[in-house]
Amino acid sequence: MTTRSEYDLLGNLNVPADAFYGIQTQRAANNFSITGVPISHFPELIKALAMVKAAAAHTNCEYGLLERTKADAIFDACQDLIQGHYHDQFIVDVIQGGAGTSTNMNANEVIANIALTKLGREKGDYQHLHPNDHVNRSQSTNDAYPTAACLGIQFAADSFIPVLSSLKASLEDKGKEFSNVLKMGRTQLQDAVPMTLGQEFDAFAVNLGEDIERIKEACTLLCEVNLGGTAIGTGINTPEGYAKKVVANLAELSGKPVVPATNLVEASSDMGAFVFFSGILKRLATKLSKMSNDLRLLSSGPRTGFGEIKLPEMQPGSSIMPGKVNPVIPEAMNQTAYQVIASDLAVTLAAEAGQLQLNAMEPMIIYNLLNSLKMLKEACEMLELRCIRGIDANADACLAHVENSIGIITALVPHIGYANSSRIARDALLSGTTVKTLILREKLLTEEQLNDLLKPENMIAPIPAKSAVQ
Amino acid sequence: MTTRSEYDLLGNLNVPADAFYGIQTQRAANNFSITGVPISHFPELIKALAMVKAAAAHTNCEYGLLERTKADAIFDACQDLIQGHYHDQFIVDVIQGGAGTSTNMNANEVIANIALTKLGREKGDYQHLHPNDHVNRSQSTNDAYPTAACLGIQFAADSFIPVLSSLKASLEDKGKEFSNVLKMGRTQLQDAVPMTLGQEFDAFAVNLGEDIERIKEACTLLCEVNLGGTAIGTGINTPEGYAKKVVANLAELSGKPVVPATNLVEASSDMGAFVFFSGILKRLATKLSKMSNDLRLLSSGPRTGFGEIKLPEMQPGSSIMPGKVNPVIPEAMNQTAYQVIASDLAVTLAAEAGQLQLNAMEPMIIYNLLNSLKMLKEACEMLELRCIRGIDANADACLAHVENSIGIITALVPHIGYANSSRIARDALLSGTTVKTLILREKLLTEEQLNDLLKPENMIAPIPAKSAVQ
Amino acid sequence: MTTRSEYDLLGNLNVPADAFYGIQTQRAANNFSITGVPISHFPELIKALAMVKAAAAHTNCEYGLLERTKADAIFDACQDLIQGHYHDQFIVDVIQGGAGTSTNMNANEVIANIALTKLGREKGDYQHLHPNDHVNRSQSTNDAYPTAACLGIQFAADSFIPVLSSLKASLEDKGKEFSNVLKMGRTQLQDAVPMTLGQEFDAFAVNLGEDIERIKEACTLLCEVNLGGTAIGTGINTPEGYAKKVVANLAELSGKPVVPATNLVEASSDMGAFVFFSGILKRLATKLSKMSNDLRLLSSGPRTGFGEIKLPEMQPGSSIMPGKVNPVIPEAMNQTAYQVIASDLAVTLAAEAGQLQLNAMEPMIIYNLLNSLKMLKEACEMLELRCIRGIDANADACLAHVENSIGIITALVPHIGYANSSRIARDALLSGTTVKTLILREKLLTEEQLNDLLKPENMIAPIPAKSAVQ
Amino acid sequence: MTTRSEYDLLGNLNVPADAFYGIQTQRAANNFSITGVPISHFPELIKALAMVKAAAAHTNCEYGLLERTKADAIFDACQDLIQGHYHDQFIVDVIQGGAGTSTNMNANEVIANIALTKLGREKGDYQHLHPNDHVNRSQSTNDAYPTAACLGIQFAADSFIPVLSSLKASLEDKGKEFSNVLKMGRTQLQDAVPMTLGQEFDAFAVNLGEDIERIKEACTLLCEVNLGGTAIGTGINTPEGYAKKVVANLAELSGKPVVPATNLVEASSDMGAFVFFSGILKRLATKLSKMSNDLRLLSSGPRTGFGEIKLPEMQPGSSIMPGKVNPVIPEAMNQTAYQVIASDLAVTLAAEAGQLQLNAMEPMIIYNLLNSLKMLKEACEMLELRCIRGIDANADACLAHVENSIGIITALVPHIGYANSSRIARDALLSGTTVKTLILREKLLTEEQLNDLLKPENMIAPIPAKSAVQ
Repeated sequence: MTTRSEYDLLGNLNVPADAFYGIQTQRAANNFSITGVPISHFPELIKALAMVKAAAAHTNCEYGLLERTKADAIFDACQDLIQGHYHDQFIVDVIQGGAGTSTNMNANEVIANIALTKLGREKGDYQHLHPNDHVNRSQSTNDAYPTAACLGIQFAADSFIPVLSSLKASLEDKGKEFSNVLKMGRTQLQDAVPMTLGQEFDAFAVNLGEDIERIKEACTLLCEVNLGGTAIGTGINTPEGYAKKVVANLAELSGKPVVPATNLVEASSDMGAFVFFSGILKRLATKLSKMSNDLRLLSSGPRTGFGEIKLPEMQPGSSIMPGKVNPVIPEAMNQTAYQVIASDLAVTLAAEAGQLQLNAMEPMIIYNLLNSLKMLKEACEMLELRCIRGIDANADACLAHVENSIGIITALVPHIGYANSSRIARDALLSGTTVKTLILREKLLTEEQLNDLLKPENMIAPIPAKSAVQ
Repeated sequence: MTTRSEYDLLGNLNVPADAFYGIQTQRAANNFSITGVPISHFPELIKALAMVKAAAAHTNCEYGLLERTKADAIFDACQDLIQGHYHDQFIVDVIQGGAGTSTNMNANEVIANIALTKLGREKGDYQHLHPNDHVNRSQSTNDAYPTAACLGIQFAADSFIPVLSSLKASLEDKGKEFSNVLKMGRTQLQDAVPMTLGQEFDAFAVNLGEDIERIKEACTLLCEVNLGGTAIGTGINTPEGYAKKVVANLAELSGKPVVPATNLVEASSDMGAFVFFSGILKRLATKLSKMSNDLRLLSSGPRTGFGEIKLPEMQPGSSIMPGKVNPVIPEAMNQTAYQVIASDLAVTLAAEAGQLQLNAMEPMIIYNLLNSLKMLKEACEMLELRCIRGIDANADACLAHVENSIGIITALVPHIGYANSSRIARDALLSGTTVKTLILREKLLTEEQLNDLLKPENMIAPIPAKSAVQ
Repeated sequence: MTTRSEYDLLGNLNVPADAFYGIQTQRAANNFSITGVPISHFPELIKALAMVKAAAAHTNCEYGLLERTKADAIFDACQDLIQGHYHDQFIVDVIQGGAGTSTNMNANEVIANIALTKLGREKGDYQHLHPNDHVNRSQSTNDAYPTAACLGIQFAADSFIPVLSSLKASLEDKGKEFSNVLKMGRTQLQDAVPMTLGQEFDAFAVNLGEDIERIKEACTLLCEVNLGGTAIGTGINTPEGYAKKVVANLAELSGKPVVPATNLVEASSDMGAFVFFSGILKRLATKLSKMSNDLRLLSSGPRTGFGEIKLPEMQPGSSIMPGKVNPVIPEAMNQTAYQVIASDLAVTLAAEAGQLQLNAMEPMIIYNLLNSLKMLKEACEMLELRCIRGIDANADACLAHVENSIGIITALVPHIGYANSSRIARDALLSGTTVKTLILREKLLTEEQLNDLLKPENMIAPIPAKSAVQ
Repeated sequence: MTTRSEYDLLGNLNVPADAFYGIQTQRAANNFSITGVPISHFPELIKALAMVKAAAAHTNCEYGLLERTKADAIFDACQDLIQGHYHDQFIVDVIQGGAGTSTNMNANEVIANIALTKLGREKGDYQHLHPNDHVNRSQSTNDAYPTAACLGIQFAADSFIPVLSSLKASLEDKGKEFSNVLKMGRTQLQDAVPMTLGQEFDAFAVNLGEDIERIKEACTLLCEVNLGGTAIGTGINTPEGYAKKVVANLAELSGKPVVPATNLVEASSDMGAFVFFSGILKRLATKLSKMSNDLRLLSSGPRTGFGEIKLPEMQPGSSIMPGKVNPVIPEAMNQTAYQVIASDLAVTLAAEAGQLQLNAMEPMIIYNLLNSLKMLKEACEMLELRCIRGIDANADACLAHVENSIGIITALVPHIGYANSSRIARDALLSGTTVKTLILREKLLTEEQLNDLLKPENMIAPIPAKSAVQ
């Protein structure tokens, strides 16, 4: 392999001759190989880094801090990255020491070398365009990197939200499809009172819908960025007014309404917005897991379980038990949810570990957020397409459950009182009789009254105010 | 002990003759003794329960579902609880099975018996006013209890927020007090660039201030309640329109802008707002812990550490090392933060464990939230009064750090370039010389230029745009 | 309230005249009120502290470092504490800064004042017997306190293990009682192959039994103590050989085979044994929670669930649904388990936060371990006495599940092949027919063969080697 | 792409003609793509699966349940996998529904097709050798898969332990190298008493050494396997005695002392050994993180921190601050540790989610354990080679800290008393004087006495018993 030699604070090192990255990227690649996942795994982050660098080049040029030729070359190089080119040059491991310096320098070096090429120079010929002096001008890792993360996470959220919305829509469709399937509701796994299967799926849809809103809110917190704060938020090595301008330029470039944080020193070390975002993903994970648990419960059987719904069959379920089909899709969703909940802990631990003017653990915070978003997107797509859309109701079984249940007595409480009802319920349970039979036997209500009170429409919703009064 | 006998679904049981609680409370007290902490530990929850019961009584009366005499007696009994009386009658353990039924019945029974007393009846004389038929009328545990929790947590937040605001104000005061104390900023525990100690404390203040906003937002999510949904959110046993009316009455009584959830079935099993709230407390905990870590780092010494600030001395620090004084207050804050982070996990686990139409683990979710709020309130008060307010700066040590540091070279990069600066920095480190000496020796800048660039005001903030251009 | 004045490094402070604790305890009580739980909540810890102090007094006397009269008085005072007296004098909050110094000084002061009383002196008359110079002689908080914790946790484990063993025994009893109840096993909530209900309960028993062993192993790790290491493990201010002797004396006094850690510097800051212990409690919690989940699933119904077992009824289940009875005891066990899992996180966070020669977060580590043990003890007792012992089998329902199931076809695979079996299973499911009918219809096996292969004893255990060969 | 058609319970599906995997693998690959990480990422798991299949083939043949030709072909195919061939055929995602059925079927299919090739048959020609009837004979996923996991994790541990031992050895080397570097010990970040830097590094070594033992112990728990239990542990479809024999064969093949679990029903659903193992990795992570924190603290500076050690420089530390070098290696170790702690939570969540006779979440439990081991191995290697081995002591700075400190007064307490010492310490602090000066001024000790008591050898270890008595 042919190489070129580059130089930094610690001396010389060879990098592959055709590499667009440079010496600091090479050192980082040598130092870190913990996950084997390079930052190119998350193209949103690379695009965001390129936008930050482009906005900075533009702004530096406005201030006369960067010649137009250089600024233009940098800007063009950034456009290449934004369009998805050269991502294979981002080789540093997602878990890295240095608070993101290696990722930032990887970007600086790749952009410098693309730009040099555009200027007709050789790679590594940094006297004409330098990764630090020019690409990184008026920046520090400590503002450029978290700002890029704030954008990158929003981009990832942008591609996740439609998936989540589509999952929600499919749940709503099932809600409509099952709106006439009467079934028993259950609380604490014990028979409660009637409802429709449609109400159950509508509830799932509403439940997820709320988190679409929460994710959007969490994105607004990510719009407060610390770009312009440089090393520790004091803005050292930036001209007055720079922070405001560069962020405005970034807003235009990215299409995201980013604004400078009100206190850049605070914003430099604060991981609050990431912790918040992670908390929202965790919340969503608990909901997706709970829903998956419900789907598995409701489809339990086929002969010895609840058997109220039937999930689409995706693969044979057993290497030994013929004919067995398992709820593999919700199970995979559960596991994804646990992984996301665990990632939230990783983020929490890392956030708490910040010290003084910076949080050195930013790389793993950002990795966990991007990874959770990626896994959730895959898993929600899977859940919708390979499970939800193909669910069928066992309407007969659902109805039989209602007719056989004791729980319907609840609808009679306002008419025969809690004490009477308790006694009848108990008798029904111990004797194996139905509630109806016992009520009629005791002449607590006439058959007509009974039939009226136990009409499905009277049990699954509030009753007309008039009939409510005994 | 004299007793009276009461009766329920499972038969007779004696309760103390003078108890305002009844048989179901007694059974729960017998069943659960895991923490030893009774629900009366959280008066906000009891007040909130009383408001729910009062609102329901009022609304039932409007609908003709409850006679005015009874409604009034219930209402008056609730007022007693709201004013803090009879709380010792809430004896059930905070960790309990039954999804809160025991807490709800404890409230129903205590209110019934207070009301009976007001009506001139004996305790236990439930034919005249019944815990279920009258106090709990048009309600289920499954709507009354979480609704009360939503209110109770807000009440607890109401008393926490002023404490947090006061802590923030004291940090701001220190920010002002230390606004002229020049010191080195540190990133990754390595000397970075200069800042003021005031900037450091201002950042703490801003950092906490954001969470005051987050807590308020989290309270708005708690304003969407499921009262009126009864057992599973279908509103069984309520008259049409009841949910809207009872929540409006509750809003008036509580002073909180509660509204009915858009989908009551969803709201019955959803723990999302609690998970969200807990996530915010966790976020705050990571910040308080990070700040405490910083305070401990900055005050490390007195002779072999950073020694930039001095915490007030609260107690001798060692049973063996005379004269040692430790940062005990931030340490206690750290531990509180860890406890709160752990509680967030408890809440998460419980939320994920919901099944079908209900989450049976609500009691521990509510316990953890109320307990975290209580601990945070105590700890923040402690931190402010016993630590922050008494912090002194070691201004001389801070300044010596700056003057002795290599990091100030960053301010020269725009003028002598990154490569030159790196070389000089390295020479300074290896030779033990100062940066200034080396710059002058190499004649890279004149002494006048140097003094100007290294003026504090030029290092702790952006520089006038003009001087930014070399 | 009459008071006496005491003096320490920070000056004078009044303590109640009749208090056995002194000035440093008073300061700590003023400083810390986060949980409201005093250390006296855990008598095992106080007993253990007293044993440490008694062993030290004895050893100091042997070395001539403490006069016999004083040593005897201290020893006698410790005996009082070991016998359960004066525990109300331990008033410091369980969450405290200072790495346990306040707890250690609380013990030193109480012991000093009890001893002074025994010597006919006034409380506070420390010139005759001093909390630091005499009670704490040759010790530091940093060795005395964690050593006491190692003992105290073992004492708590000693009272937990019999409860866990008893729970295990009751599960075994049920295993025997249900040994002939044939039922379907389920994997992934889908019908699998037959087993007995007895096998299911035996498995629960074995499962918990393993953790009794693990807890005992964890106790052996707690037997390696750092007493004698004093401030940072170097043994400063102890005579040569002291560590070995004092630990030997402590072993005798406590009845626990404690030995000095091989490296006292390491042992001073290491929380490994606590993290290990906490991990075991967490493991047990996952098991108890899984078992509780199973009990709730198996008893789900009464009419629309699995309905294979019936839990004893402990309290009415609903304020609105008459006759409903919920699995409140397993639900409370679940919540306890979540609390213990969360405590393990608290311990983990605190352990990771240790710095250099000490872990300042020890108090909350110890609190969480003692609290988890206490809650688990209460909860396991509850689970055994209020649930397990009263469980009944619904044997008829269990058998009907087997006879109706498709899963029994697995037993035929070795005889008719996986492909044939899959086809038959599918036909049975889609047509609603039984497996038997289809096999006979296709003449894949004779009725005699079939009956033999489907005998319960052939389905719930390996088959004689001969019949295994087709 | 040419394909072949295969058939299963759900119908036909094409697989690539040259694939050794078959239809069920293909379905799983279509269903699951959440992480993008295929199971081939963990070769230890594939080797272990092959050993299980080889042991089963061998045992089935002994029982006459499998013809010798087929058994031999299967055995040879397994050898190929054990030697590392065909791993690219293991394409299923590590997170998958189905409790590992897809992984097990992937193994069954690949082995069947390799064996068919060896028998001169076409891939997919399963009538001559069937993935289920022959390769999976006498097995279920539910015993074969967790058994393979138990082995695979041990293999991964086998390659991790030497790395950890080597790290420990390097720490010991540093312990020796620094055995004469006197420095101040610190507790709670405050100056405590003297020690040597060698003692500090020795403590690190001992600390990690303990976890090598713990990991080995955890491996013994993994030696209790459930192979032979088949579907739910009842051993359905195995001949009597099979479990014992197949596990004995597996022990021979694997070189690991595996034995059958005492209760196979329990062992089928129990995740206890995995939870235990994960707890040990978490414990190790807390230690590695604490040590990394210490290394970062001790090397803080270079001018404004503790500055007691110097870490090797691995890469420039800042894109803006020239000359800055950060502790990137310990920082990466910290992040790895947080990731491992988070994985432990994932394992815990999954373990708790087991239901009845199986835990459907096994795949992610196994993934997290293998992944944690892999990351820890990489990170420990990194830490040793790129950090520990190159650490230098700043011996002069260390000594200056001791000489300047107040903490040395502790060594005088046995001679001048705690009260006197406290007063002197305070005076020294407030006046900026040294302890020595004040002691001599007050004539509390002679200069000779003082010099003797403050000799390093008297402060970093217990003192001769004689001199201990005043």
